[in-house]
Amino acid sequence: MGAGESFTLGRLAEVLNAALEGEAERVVTGVAPLDTATASQLAYVADRRHLTAARASRAGAFLAPTDVTGLPAPTLHCADSRRALAAVLTLFHPPATPVPGVDRTARVDAGARVDATASIGPFAVIEAGASIGPRVRIDAYVYVGACAEIGEGSALFPHVVLYERCRLGRRVVVHAGAVIGADGFGFIPDPAAHLKIPQIGTVVVGDDVEIGANSTIDRATLGATSIGRGTKIDNLVHIGHNVEIGDGALIAAQVGIAGSSRLGAGVILGGQAGVADHVTIGAGAVMGAQSGTTKDIAPGERVALSWARPILQATRIWHAEERLPDLLRIVKRLEARVEALETRVTDAGGSRA
Amino acid sequence: MGAGESFTLGRLAEVLNAALEGEAERVVTGVAPLDTATASQLAYVADRRHLTAARASRAGAFLAPTDVTGLPAPTLHCADSRRALAAVLTLFHPPATPVPGVDRTARVDAGARVDATASIGPFAVIEAGASIGPRVRIDAYVYVGACAEIGEGSALFPHVVLYERCRLGRRVVVHAGAVIGADGFGFIPDPAAHLKIPQIGTVVVGDDVEIGANSTIDRATLGATSIGRGTKIDNLVHIGHNVEIGDGALIAAQVGIAGSSRLGAGVILGGQAGVADHVTIGAGAVMGAQSGTTKDIAPGERVALSWARPILQATRIWHAEERLPDLLRIVKRLEARVEALETRVTDAGGSRA
Amino acid sequence: MGAGESFTLGRLAEVLNAALEGEAERVVTGVAPLDTATASQLAYVADRRHLTAARASRAGAFLAPTDVTGLPAPTLHCADSRRALAAVLTLFHPPATPVPGVDRTARVDAGARVDATASIGPFAVIEAGASIGPRVRIDAYVYVGACAEIGEGSALFPHVVLYERCRLGRRVVVHAGAVIGADGFGFIPDPAAHLKIPQIGTVVVGDDVEIGANSTIDRATLGATSIGRGTKIDNLVHIGHNVEIGDGALIAAQVGIAGSSRLGAGVILGGQAGVADHVTIGAGAVMGAQSGTTKDIAPGERVALSWARPILQATRIWHAEERLPDLLRIVKRLEARVEALETRVTDAGGSRA
Repeated sequence: MGAGESFTLGRLAEVLNAALEGEAERVVTGVAPLDTATASQLAYVADRRHLTAARASRAGAFLAPTDVTGLPAPTLHCADSRRALAAVLTLFHPPATPVPGVDRTARVDAGARVDATASIGPFAVIEAGASIGPRVRIDAYVYVGACAEIGEGSALFPHVVLYERCRLGRRVVVHAGAVIGADGFGFIPDPAAHLKIPQIGTVVVGDDVEIGANSTIDRATLGATSIGRGTKIDNLVHIGHNVEIGDGALIAAQVGIAGSSRLGAGVILGGQAGVADHVTIGAGAVMGAQSGTTKDIAPGERVALSWARPILQATRIWHAEERLPDLLRIVKRLEARVEALETRVTDAGGSRA
Repeated sequence: MGAGESFTLGRLAEVLNAALEGEAERVVTGVAPLDTATASQLAYVADRRHLTAARASRAGAFLAPTDVTGLPAPTLHCADSRRALAAVLTLFHPPATPVPGVDRTARVDAGARVDATASIGPFAVIEAGASIGPRVRIDAYVYVGACAEIGEGSALFPHVVLYERCRLGRRVVVHAGAVIGADGFGFIPDPAAHLKIPQIGTVVVGDDVEIGANSTIDRATLGATSIGRGTKIDNLVHIGHNVEIGDGALIAAQVGIAGSSRLGAGVILGGQAGVADHVTIGAGAVMGAQSGTTKDIAPGERVALSWARPILQATRIWHAEERLPDLLRIVKRLEARVEALETRVTDAGGSRA
Repeated sequence: MGAGESFTLGRLAEVLNAALEGEAERVVTGVAPLDTATASQLAYVADRRHLTAARASRAGAFLAPTDVTGLPAPTLHCADSRRALAAVLTLFHPPATPVPGVDRTARVDAGARVDATASIGPFAVIEAGASIGPRVRIDAYVYVGACAEIGEGSALFPHVVLYERCRLGRRVVVHAGAVIGADGFGFIPDPAAHLKIPQIGTVVVGDDVEIGANSTIDRATLGATSIGRGTKIDNLVHIGHNVEIGDGALIAAQVGIAGSSRLGAGVILGGQAGVADHVTIGAGAVMGAQSGTTKDIAPGERVALSWARPILQATRIWHAEERLPDLLRIVKRLEARVEALETRVTDAGGSRA
């Protein structure tokens, strides 16, 4: 990829507030991995573990933490080099400004309100009463239901579905195929025929939220399913009806959160973690990958389940575990018997020489 | 949301067969959560745990179980208040009748059969030989493959894909992005090149089934993958080729069911549960969230795996488990040694005072 | 389904290199399951466990392993009957050749390169600089981003999204709703506001790869997320940014692989398995369904987690496990005490008769 931008190392040092080791006039035209970077590209050295790869690299310059030195080309040293990487990538690849206007194939209802600076892509459908804010980007095949609202600067990638009356804040990013506002899974179980509870609520998504590809966030039964400001959600995540997630949470791929659960601010859920319904996860709590809970988790608490093992060992342990509850009792009885023996042997006194 | 409907409490009491405590003439215009309901809205009190919230509510009326009394506004008391909630929501929000007709942007093959009362949305594609029944609702971007069939009153939300020859019964609801009839994962493993087994079967979905957003149900290798009448399937569920699910099952989000497994009527699978291939789950069996099985489960049986713990404890237990099989042997030997000691000490007889 | 093809058993025996037991002139018109096959259809008997069903079948002929004999109709015996089934299914259902040309509703940018033999379906969008090879099949609503490349003979089913600059090899099959090249989940956590790391890399998919419905493969931060030649990926799988998967891997449904992990050639991952970030899985390793790892797995190693149990037992074991680390210590102490007792009793010598 070449956006055509280029910078001298001196200019980059200035912008990144970096200490430059080497010539300030050298020009770089982009960022690339250590193993493919060319003489006109900058490569990133995450830490000392990549030192060997860095020394073999043909990169024209490096971006590295302060303790990574002795590299074979000029180096920008930053205390927080990962943050500097984000900054330098943004310099070389500034977010594209969508071209304002409505594609001729899009279907925008006469009763929808679309800001003149918004970009509506091919085959998009915007229903009556929907409101699309300034500089919003609506890609191909995006469906925006009746009376839905999308705040300033948000971007909806191809095939996103935003059901009627759901609301996205400002600068929200929704990746391809995500579905926001489908009916919650609300049924009254009945052997004759499960009875559907109409799902008439909505979904409300705060500013600066990012939602991954093919994730699903269900509308509430009543009220709103809500995602707090700045929360980031990965791909294929399921968020049930009436769930409330606080600000700044991080939800990894394939996590599932069942109905009406509440997650505090800054919660972190590892991949494939699961939260049962009506559970409260306190602010700042961390759930490890694949862990699951049916109970509340206290603020700041860190929980995990367990991890794979060699299959024979896993099978032996699995069988042994079935005898564990009995084992506890057996050991308790054994202790009593040993104690009795000790008493008898001691009482016997002089029996010991 | 305002559908414009309004009812007196007297009328609602009649329809719901509820005992009304308070004025029958009061008019309500909708249902809302306890914390946001206004004087013209009805709020639902699920049980006594919500009593404090209910007493602080400004709702104009309440719907509550018979044992929840002393509320600050007229109250409709119902023995089965959750079912009454479903009924009252349906009263205020009757299912929208889709406008019959084919959107001008839809692509309906001349060889497809579309009932005059069906509604075909923008950019829908209906291939040759497909059959769309009365009052069916086909939303934007829905793809209906050749010779597929959709029964009376079914609704397919945006982006649903129904591959060729698959069949949906009557009143089936398929949420956005679900894919029905993609090829099963059928390969003959071969280090040189895995050999694909053509997947020429279909998917057959019974009446009154609901399928969640972005779920996938694969077509059979031969014959049909089948979903029984009244079964409800949540979001992001995977159902493999040749799976057979009985009537009235409840399948929560992100469940995965591998090829050729059979689930009996009324089976309940918690979120993220997994069923290996060729497994039989008996009628009425229940699998807890995140549990998995490679073996058959008897009818009515309830199974579970286990749950997250504080991470330090989880780690300690995980390591301790590795010594568990040995521990069983050690304890067994200990028992024998203690028994031997007991015999010897007892035999020694008079050694005890 | 009737593709209209028909074959004599003699011809099939020839093509499949099968030993025919019965009349070579009999004509069959298709393949069907044992329980529904008619007198003009061939039915497949996987192994001796299906003997009873086979004997009750009305099929006009059978395909069976060499050790399955005595069937009620002419039988094609093959040493590798499953491979023969794949071959016979392909005979009856040869892959459809897509009709070359661009549907009138498709949006192909003037700057895109589309081979004359490619088939571009309704409402497809092909952006500038994209390259579509010979005999490629692009279905309805497929989005091909700027400068993306699709190799000869590949097929993209409805609603597939291929983001800009991503590349598919030859004969790649991508099922409905899969998303290739969305941004990786790359954020620098920050309580004030998580900082997005621009994801400027790509996805590179090798020849003969198959990708399941609604799966997601994220683009790399830098460089490329890569999927090796001949790897098969099931539905709803998540593959994170910068993941590298070798040739010929088999990835079952709902697997999740976090960022920067590397899987060797021929790796097999069971359904819902999870791989944490920066993990290396050696060639030929096998992870059981629902297992997860945060550590490297050696080549050829087989790992698993554990399996569901009756819920009461699962609960008892779960509680007992919490006492397991202590139990190990208790048993160790008990052993010492028993040994001390044994010494004392033995020392006591003549106390035993």
